[in-house]
Amino acid sequence: MNILGKNILGNSSSSEGTVGIQALNPATGETLGPLFYKATLSELETAVQKAISAFDTYKNTSGQQKATFLEAIATEIEQLGDTLLNRYMAESGLPAGRAAGERGRTMGQLRMFANLIREGSWVNATIDPALPDRQPLARPDLRSMERALGPVAVFGASNFPLAFSVAGGDTAAALASGCPVVFKAHPSHLGTSDLVGQAIQKAAQDTGMPDGVFSMLYDDGIEIGQALVKHPSIRAVAFTGSYRGGKAIFDTAMQRPEPIPVYAEMGSTNPVFILPETAQAQAESLAQNYLGSVTMGVGQFCTNPGMLFYQTNPAFKALLIQKTAAAASGVMLNSGIKLAYDKGISHLSKQASVLAKGASPESKNAAQPIIFHVPYEQFAANPDLSEEVFGPSSVVIETTSKEELLAAARNLKGHLTATVIGSEAELALYSDLIDILSQKVGRLLFNGFPTGVEVSHAMVHGGPFPATTDARSTSVGTQAITRFTRPVCFQDMPNSLLPPALKHDNPEGIWRKIDGLLQK
Amino acid sequence: MNILGKNILGNSSSSEGTVGIQALNPATGETLGPLFYKATLSELETAVQKAISAFDTYKNTSGQQKATFLEAIATEIEQLGDTLLNRYMAESGLPAGRAAGERGRTMGQLRMFANLIREGSWVNATIDPALPDRQPLARPDLRSMERALGPVAVFGASNFPLAFSVAGGDTAAALASGCPVVFKAHPSHLGTSDLVGQAIQKAAQDTGMPDGVFSMLYDDGIEIGQALVKHPSIRAVAFTGSYRGGKAIFDTAMQRPEPIPVYAEMGSTNPVFILPETAQAQAESLAQNYLGSVTMGVGQFCTNPGMLFYQTNPAFKALLIQKTAAAASGVMLNSGIKLAYDKGISHLSKQASVLAKGASPESKNAAQPIIFHVPYEQFAANPDLSEEVFGPSSVVIETTSKEELLAAARNLKGHLTATVIGSEAELALYSDLIDILSQKVGRLLFNGFPTGVEVSHAMVHGGPFPATTDARSTSVGTQAITRFTRPVCFQDMPNSLLPPALKHDNPEGIWRKIDGLLQK
Repeated sequence: MNILGKNILGNSSSSEGTVGIQALNPATGETLGPLFYKATLSELETAVQKAISAFDTYKNTSGQQKATFLEAIATEIEQLGDTLLNRYMAESGLPAGRAAGERGRTMGQLRMFANLIREGSWVNATIDPALPDRQPLARPDLRSMERALGPVAVFGASNFPLAFSVAGGDTAAALASGCPVVFKAHPSHLGTSDLVGQAIQKAAQDTGMPDGVFSMLYDDGIEIGQALVKHPSIRAVAFTGSYRGGKAIFDTAMQRPEPIPVYAEMGSTNPVFILPETAQAQAESLAQNYLGSVTMGVGQFCTNPGMLFYQTNPAFKALLIQKTAAAASGVMLNSGIKLAYDKGISHLSKQASVLAKGASPESKNAAQPIIFHVPYEQFAANPDLSEEVFGPSSVVIETTSKEELLAAARNLKGHLTATVIGSEAELALYSDLIDILSQKVGRLLFNGFPTGVEVSHAMVHGGPFPATTDARSTSVGTQAITRFTRPVCFQDMPNSLLPPALKHDNPEGIWRKIDGLLQK
Repeated sequence: MNILGKNILGNSSSSEGTVGIQALNPATGETLGPLFYKATLSELETAVQKAISAFDTYKNTSGQQKATFLEAIATEIEQLGDTLLNRYMAESGLPAGRAAGERGRTMGQLRMFANLIREGSWVNATIDPALPDRQPLARPDLRSMERALGPVAVFGASNFPLAFSVAGGDTAAALASGCPVVFKAHPSHLGTSDLVGQAIQKAAQDTGMPDGVFSMLYDDGIEIGQALVKHPSIRAVAFTGSYRGGKAIFDTAMQRPEPIPVYAEMGSTNPVFILPETAQAQAESLAQNYLGSVTMGVGQFCTNPGMLFYQTNPAFKALLIQKTAAAASGVMLNSGIKLAYDKGISHLSKQASVLAKGASPESKNAAQPIIFHVPYEQFAANPDLSEEVFGPSSVVIETTSKEELLAAARNLKGHLTATVIGSEAELALYSDLIDILSQKVGRLLFNGFPTGVEVSHAMVHGGPFPATTDARSTSVGTQAITRFTRPVCFQDMPNSLLPPALKHDNPEGIWRKIDGLLQK
């Protein structure tokens, strides 16, 4: 174990700064060594300059080589073994099973992107061959493909110290696309970040990637992040966190002399609609699974179901009370998040009745599950009840008609997910509800609960504002790779100079659209 | 001929307003009837409300039905015959050949999108089937596809009264994707807009499209456009025009409570780099073709080559003088554009020497071609020389070394196009130049000139800021369709409720990615 507490600047490390940042165990409050050092603006400049240099070669690095790099990162992370898992648990308050599971997912993501770029078809190679004899004008030879944007800034999320952090989905997608990453570590898991950052650094060196393909900076405030977003050589930003943080980054980026894409995944209350017959038929398991989803990871998932709509059903309501009372408390990620949870709960308590509470918290920074309950009319009149409270709480809204369910759906803002629970026959009667919900979310689920985001090709982890700042994209799954690219068209470029994906004989054997027809 | 001078609000027309807008012939200054009426905010509200209603059904209208609609628009435009062409020429000052050519392109675009959506694979259907037995967790069934955003605002461009206007590329792409369009007509071709708007209206009615799928509003100021961009139910904006106009729309949209995508294609000076040996070998034809490109359409193309870089070559310079002197003047689109051209030329004349001028203008609002010439050092020191002057002028920059060419490329902002002229052998020696340029543009051309944008699958008519506000997209070609869509994922949705593109048995027979593999 070799935690240095230093910023990572490509192949080198640095701690120019004098402002220390202390890692903490949220469950015990004990400090965890070493002391980390807030990055200086000069370290930031070094990181970006190295990224610019790295981009010169990295953007033209083959899919095969980049895949080797991503796989090496996964292997390095694996080889950190218990050192990483123990640090993760100490810093996050999350249990061993979650630590191992999230590490597996993180390695899986890296390997999934490695497979994607080794195969190569993701670049969307599109070819309209020359038509020299066309009348009245000849058609030139036109070939377009996705190309990397340049150095990008990625912000670590508090709630997934591995999967949405240093070597998480955004970093993996950016590196896969050919973009160097300057990473802003989250102050809530400094040691975990350091270990993974060093794993990436080592993998980059071992696989011959250019110095600066990855750098990582520490800061427990906003100075470094803001400077990074404003840096004229940063070409895109990815962020997962609060609405306040994400919107501030978005506004900063849009006000740059040259605006850049911002993929901020912010908040969502992930509404769940339980249709009446099914609520009747499956009351017990629905109440159980809903509480399981609300309290999973101490409610610290972006896809936590923060609102549940049902039609008057005393038996189901009684079961919700019973299951809530049986729900365990758990340690939150850090004292700031716990404080915000307490504040949110205190505010909600003044707006809605408490349906039930879970087990009382027994350790420092532990949160108690709480379920609120309001009639639809009260809910509709009070926008505060739709605001996300990050943690193991949720608002249950009792409706008295289908019309209220539809109105609730129509009034939704953008969310990451919405869920409808109903038998196929009952769902068919609510196709209008489904149609409305599909316009409000990135993912529409049936007969499940939204926590648990599959990492795959079809996943869309995104959604309309304010869930994200760019609904045209996903932060999970292979489709995230085009966050960091744009199409470039080459007209009448000699074959010898074309990128391999566009060469006449298709040396990579990828799928290409030629005259509008897909072929290999 | 039935020019009403009224705003089009879905199936009905309206002229609530009292502020008249007069159509003019730029070549003669004569007024053209009838008087048009500036839309009121209440007409705008009606247009948007109708678009919202239309979206309810239009978003789920099949590709087959939407294709029929687009084809009917093309047919209606064709049937306007000389009425349309004569009005186009009277309002734009452009000649008959251009009118007919642009009409052909416009119909071609509509039919291209019709073919695209009839075939259907553009929705990017992606399926990860359920894995119920997977350990440790089952995988749900995940299916995602592109879905229409909602009502969109499209602004007509001055310089293509048909192809980038009422039924132009953006309207065609939006309608193809499933989005109703509220169109802001350009005041410089009111009658042309009216004719085409009515053609769309008739096509919508004849093919059974919902009332409000298309509306059109007039304004010769910014009030209606700004209100449209701010309207909370407008989900995206497409614009082609000046930097000032596009950036203002972008800023307005980003400052909305809910920001929306803005595709503003603004300005570009489309740099051309002529490599020394090839300049020597093909001096005559290069000088001729460059002047042809500069003066095409009286220089009023987004892809006009406003900068030409070459290495010291007195013979080539002499030919440029000779060809410029032989270039004809032409009537500009309107008096405002002519005024801006004169102002731009007057400013440039103080910064650079005039290399040569073309024929003196003989009619009202006609512009004289002018080519400026500066040594590279002077160019590099004066950012004004890189600014677009819309019209038949260009700045020739004389470099003395490859290093100066590379420095010029590195200092470029974002452009729609860049061009490199050189033999294959010479191009190979300038691969560093090519590499730099490919990062600055949407389209990189070889041995041609940038005017003339092919409408096809591989075309990218876009590029980094300030050429556009969103480099991840194109405004020409089939790939424009995803400007107006976002991906939506359906998890464990019963097959009976899935959109046809995602149903188990692939009823549309489209290409789909299943477990990451493309198949039909």
